[in-house]
Amino acid sequence: MGSLTTIQRLSEFAGQSVELQGWVYNTRSSGKIGFLMLRDGTGIVQSVISTDDVSGELFGTFETLTQESAVTVRGEVREDKRAPGGYELLVNGLDVHHVAQDYPIAPKEHGTAFLMDHRHLWLRSRRQHAIMLVRHEVIRACRDFLDNNDFVLVDTPIITPNAVEGTTTLFAIDYFGRSAYLTQSGQLYNEANAIALKKVYCFGPTFRAEKSKTRRHLTEFWMVEPEMAYCDLDGNIEWAEQLVAYIVSRVLETRMEQLDVLERDVSRLEVIGTPFPRVSYTEAVDMLQKAGIDFQWGGDFGGGDETILSENFEQPLIIHRFPAAIKAFYMKRDPDDERLALGVDILAPEGYGEIVGGGQREDDLDTLTTLIKQNDLPLEDYQWYLDLRRYGSVPHSGFGMGIERVVGWICGVPHLRETIPYPRTLTRLEP
Amino acid sequence: MGSLTTIQRLSEFAGQSVELQGWVYNTRSSGKIGFLMLRDGTGIVQSVISTDDVSGELFGTFETLTQESAVTVRGEVREDKRAPGGYELLVNGLDVHHVAQDYPIAPKEHGTAFLMDHRHLWLRSRRQHAIMLVRHEVIRACRDFLDNNDFVLVDTPIITPNAVEGTTTLFAIDYFGRSAYLTQSGQLYNEANAIALKKVYCFGPTFRAEKSKTRRHLTEFWMVEPEMAYCDLDGNIEWAEQLVAYIVSRVLETRMEQLDVLERDVSRLEVIGTPFPRVSYTEAVDMLQKAGIDFQWGGDFGGGDETILSENFEQPLIIHRFPAAIKAFYMKRDPDDERLALGVDILAPEGYGEIVGGGQREDDLDTLTTLIKQNDLPLEDYQWYLDLRRYGSVPHSGFGMGIERVVGWICGVPHLRETIPYPRTLTRLEP
Repeated sequence: MGSLTTIQRLSEFAGQSVELQGWVYNTRSSGKIGFLMLRDGTGIVQSVISTDDVSGELFGTFETLTQESAVTVRGEVREDKRAPGGYELLVNGLDVHHVAQDYPIAPKEHGTAFLMDHRHLWLRSRRQHAIMLVRHEVIRACRDFLDNNDFVLVDTPIITPNAVEGTTTLFAIDYFGRSAYLTQSGQLYNEANAIALKKVYCFGPTFRAEKSKTRRHLTEFWMVEPEMAYCDLDGNIEWAEQLVAYIVSRVLETRMEQLDVLERDVSRLEVIGTPFPRVSYTEAVDMLQKAGIDFQWGGDFGGGDETILSENFEQPLIIHRFPAAIKAFYMKRDPDDERLALGVDILAPEGYGEIVGGGQREDDLDTLTTLIKQNDLPLEDYQWYLDLRRYGSVPHSGFGMGIERVVGWICGVPHLRETIPYPRTLTRLEP
Repeated sequence: MGSLTTIQRLSEFAGQSVELQGWVYNTRSSGKIGFLMLRDGTGIVQSVISTDDVSGELFGTFETLTQESAVTVRGEVREDKRAPGGYELLVNGLDVHHVAQDYPIAPKEHGTAFLMDHRHLWLRSRRQHAIMLVRHEVIRACRDFLDNNDFVLVDTPIITPNAVEGTTTLFAIDYFGRSAYLTQSGQLYNEANAIALKKVYCFGPTFRAEKSKTRRHLTEFWMVEPEMAYCDLDGNIEWAEQLVAYIVSRVLETRMEQLDVLERDVSRLEVIGTPFPRVSYTEAVDMLQKAGIDFQWGGDFGGGDETILSENFEQPLIIHRFPAAIKAFYMKRDPDDERLALGVDILAPEGYGEIVGGGQREDDLDTLTTLIKQNDLPLEDYQWYLDLRRYGSVPHSGFGMGIERVVGWICGVPHLRETIPYPRTLTRLEP
């Protein structure tokens, strides 16, 4: 009996006997030598089974194996530069736990709707498996970066009585007879938490009931939102670019094997480093106009505009100081130009769109009260938020980073539905 | 000008000049010497301001400071064993950014309803601040333990079409005209993910629309749920007890200052270590009956029963093999006794109740199909879940651990409403 281990740890067992528990990814046989591609959830290894080494009965068992049957395989780990992963297994034992019949995802092409309907099985495929591992690493990198920089995780509520950015795209729920909403952002609460704990973040699911069917929209997605007291727009931008750069370097350091499976051009990731280029909104409008786009100052950038802007840079592009009219009411006005708000977006390179949005918050009680009234928001519901300007108000800033957008960019996957385990869209609620 | 730093890092600056940005926790003055307790979100430090060292104007400014006014304080860091935290600041400069008027939470007693209504401010108080830091550490410890043991975070959906454990306690939402529910558990999805990625976990908010008003119930709470393929009940129990023990040791290692603020008897935490005691449900029923409780085999333990059981042990108590009739349909039957399900609960010591619940899952297609029908659940909705038993079914297990329950136990806080930043209960949806 060899040591029970996993495929990701095989390099620690070169020349030794091991036991692996997994599933049949596929098989082929030349009559006397069989090849069993075994996946165990941590990786895939080629297992070689020869009639010279095992009984005819065992080889017969191998020949009956179907895709996704559950098996335990025993054998010797052999380094082989030609083998995928660098190691293969010389099989001397095989137990079959469960024979799968007619696994629906064959190694052929399937339509996206079919694959999405079988998402619970599709996750077993090599490509989806690789995306999930990168996603895991992106999230872990976010948390490590923030935790190691003295940020405190303070979870903000999912069920809220308030709407941060208007009510048109909210999912409503019945809360014991009261109306309530699923959160779109933890930001208002983050501001209270930052005054209490200095540098904080929330990291949870957020929801938008948008009737958009584009590849960039999910109705349920994950967002990390840091918020810092005693921090202005420039400080905010620095935290955001440091975070993005850290995530990229971390994935490159730990997940090269998965990026390889995804056939990602990693040279586009290896160049990422701070400082990222900074342009003002007004400069960005100039760039669009010079590129021949009919874009007027005051408008919001669409997906196409973002792609054109980001194509000018190999780094993520920081755009700051937007027209106040197109930004949320709580954004602080630029003291140098009242038409502008101290907001910031970061666009990923290669046309992957906005990955960060944030800004400095309005910290003056009277100004914020006026803005709430001008936006026809119910003042009474915002009294607690206004308290933050009554008691020890200080400059403070923050941003949100969409996890799926970042995963899509890093993996080179244009459609967000592959970047989250169980996507929720306008037309999809299953499985 | 001294270095800009934070109170938690003051020990690195002994004898040096620093600048701190924060808020006034409270002040007192003897006419010639003033004491400013400064909080900056990372800690509290006593700042001493003397008329011998600063101008009369500056001392006058100090004397006008109100609770929660925002200030920058400059001075020299002096080690002082008698000072709270071991360091104090000899002030030589002070800037006032914002003067708070009539901060509502005075350093006197307030009723819980009042404090909960002011949760956005209450978090600034020393005790709530300490609980939030312990919560942060508990969550970080969970993630580190799982990540370092090769678990992969795979986020399960919040908006679901299925009900895991019946529909009576679900929050319903309108999903573009379809009915959907907020998740009560990621478990069904976790099972699919474990077959795809071996050892996985989800970690997100979960929801129960329970009309309970006890101190142990929140409608929105956070749960970490690991799930392992090729893992039976015993393996599951070992992972759960290792996780719990790791969290306790990590908090003791890093958050002693906060436990001190909370006046926690840490001797009760310092004894925690694996293996935890294990009793079967049947043995636990015997224990209750011997303690004079009128409890019949087959019933579910109530909060009072759990307290009595846990009081016999200084360690968390593992209870396993429950009557199948009181457990969820997907739990595997005990092959040695068909009346029993291979479930496990872990009760915290000191009467803090259940912190872990889980078990081995039914992996046989026919048995599970029958159970779904017997429970009057719609078979069609569970076809994807049954797929996991059609294609490579293996023994698999998992558990859920409630974060707020663990934080409450470790902090010694009996009411869960203090263990989450913005509690949601039957009667509370604000702030």
